[in-house]
Amino acid sequence: MLTEKLQKIYRETCADALYTTTDYLRRYLTGFYSTDGFVISDDKGSTFVADLRYAEAAEKALEGTGIKIEVGAYDRAQELLEPYMKLGVPFDLISYQEAKKLTDGGHELFDSLPAFREAMIVKDEKEISLIRKACEIAEDAFNALLPEIKEGMTETEVAALLEYNMRRLGASGTSFDTICAFGENGSVPHHETGTRKLRFGDIILIDFGCKVDGYCSDITRTFLFGDDGKHDTFKKAYAEVLKAHNLVKEKVVSGMTGREADAVARDSLKEAGLDKYFTHSLGHGIGLNIHENPYLSPRGEEVLRDGMVFSDEPGVYFAGEFGIRIEDSVYLENGRVVSFMNRTKKDLIIL
Amino acid sequence: MLTEKLQKIYRETCADALYTTTDYLRRYLTGFYSTDGFVISDDKGSTFVADLRYAEAAEKALEGTGIKIEVGAYDRAQELLEPYMKLGVPFDLISYQEAKKLTDGGHELFDSLPAFREAMIVKDEKEISLIRKACEIAEDAFNALLPEIKEGMTETEVAALLEYNMRRLGASGTSFDTICAFGENGSVPHHETGTRKLRFGDIILIDFGCKVDGYCSDITRTFLFGDDGKHDTFKKAYAEVLKAHNLVKEKVVSGMTGREADAVARDSLKEAGLDKYFTHSLGHGIGLNIHENPYLSPRGEEVLRDGMVFSDEPGVYFAGEFGIRIEDSVYLENGRVVSFMNRTKKDLIIL
Repeated sequence: MLTEKLQKIYRETCADALYTTTDYLRRYLTGFYSTDGFVISDDKGSTFVADLRYAEAAEKALEGTGIKIEVGAYDRAQELLEPYMKLGVPFDLISYQEAKKLTDGGHELFDSLPAFREAMIVKDEKEISLIRKACEIAEDAFNALLPEIKEGMTETEVAALLEYNMRRLGASGTSFDTICAFGENGSVPHHETGTRKLRFGDIILIDFGCKVDGYCSDITRTFLFGDDGKHDTFKKAYAEVLKAHNLVKEKVVSGMTGREADAVARDSLKEAGLDKYFTHSLGHGIGLNIHENPYLSPRGEEVLRDGMVFSDEPGVYFAGEFGIRIEDSVYLENGRVVSFMNRTKKDLIIL
Repeated sequence: MLTEKLQKIYRETCADALYTTTDYLRRYLTGFYSTDGFVISDDKGSTFVADLRYAEAAEKALEGTGIKIEVGAYDRAQELLEPYMKLGVPFDLISYQEAKKLTDGGHELFDSLPAFREAMIVKDEKEISLIRKACEIAEDAFNALLPEIKEGMTETEVAALLEYNMRRLGASGTSFDTICAFGENGSVPHHETGTRKLRFGDIILIDFGCKVDGYCSDITRTFLFGDDGKHDTFKKAYAEVLKAHNLVKEKVVSGMTGREADAVARDSLKEAGLDKYFTHSLGHGIGLNIHENPYLSPRGEEVLRDGMVFSDEPGVYFAGEFGIRIEDSVYLENGRVVSFMNRTKKDLIIL
């Protein structure tokens, strides 16, 4: 399976060999995680150059995959590259310094990243199951958080507790800096979690996720910490955002473009007169990166296909007042949207 | 102060302008954190190109610094670069893609990273105070962790609890993946925290740290979870590692090289017949990066100076049995080593 993927990336890059040193691409090619290492691949197969810290673990993990292990570091990798004139490297990820050394050494460089991106956009069963696990942990962590939220806690304290829950449930870490916003702070889509204290009647917006074997989850929930009776506008808007969120699950199908998918949510919010508050795009691909192709936005021309994983996250933001975002990580199977997230409530929660 | 630093980096790079897009270098130049942005600096001063998400916060944070704000993104940054032929960029941090665009656009590139590294190696008062805060949080989090450690907990659970404590105490996150190793797992210096369960009599090694305003702390403690009476070898070795750790604080002075500092610990362990188990170097610089210059190792030729911050972390590793590492973050002031860490015990803790 991986070999097929690799062959495709190799063919499309049109180089004599692929030279891959970026951690998440290395992991994609081999399934093995390390902070350092060099993968050299040609039409015969791959060699993983690992230093002493990783060599033993790599031998074990890569047994039976046909990937050769060489113990060594940078210099050994350069020796192995010598026979190859044309090298495929990811132009946007390799440093100028590293690229210069390769060209100074007589290699000609070809960009391997477009082929990687094209391969990585469709997930296989193993990848889907890892993302599912990361989503389950995120939801379970959220459910465990709710009864712990108390008046006077800071945004940072709530985020810390949620992150602790995810870690405790088996995540290796967060997939991005947790956004926890109370009240008016929710109106900034990328609010930096801070020291604002929770008060009765506050709207809480939490955007978070975790990693399992490198694969990410992404989820946002917006809810009320007590109902002070002043939330009519909020409740109406919440219902509209939820409607848009659910319409995406219902109407988006394989074969649509990212733009068409975005329009499903945007048109629904427009009918409610809320589209001008929907200031970002509907979603983004999710995998080893928290943001990757496809992009579901007014400019998204990518055609959605089975096996693609992305976020469904319509939101509206009222400057200085509040924000609402409802987000699931979802994927396409047999032409339809399937959500990874079925363990948390999306009807408005009032604590 | 920052202006003086900037001028030095500018002069040493010998370019018409510095073009800085890497997040931690941007933060170093401006003191302002953002995930995106472009800083363009010449002999007159700096311009920060920030997009709409950051423009308002940047205006506020940079008031009075003389740094101009321009609202915009990549295209605006390119326009502002047009008048400059020779650009200083960090060769090891800028991507090949980005560099290619600049050279295709007629710019000639000069490496700004050596000058950044040289400037960043000596910390000013503000930087020292942020690192101090990160160290205090790490120690307080450790002290709060100890009474919570129970038999049967996994390495991941203990790490999660410690990370939660740091976050709760005001850290923005960890400065690296927490290493928590029980028993025999401690013999791998870079052990990957996992599901090994804690048993009575286990040696626990925890290497961790956190960030405050981008600045890192780094600390390792090794201790016993109950004394099963089988730890004579361990206790003797612990005393020797602690002796080496303390000798470094006593004997290392400004003017020594990193190699000479490393030798203080290595020679002490050699006298005890343990130097062959000391398989890594004594320490590394600490700042906006968890690993930076200076390096205190057998190959460290950098001369240590007042204001440098680094780790003092001798360790010994007995394959398959256990490991011991005792680490403080320290700095040089008035020629002598001052530790940031005075809140935790270094005499052997037995829980």
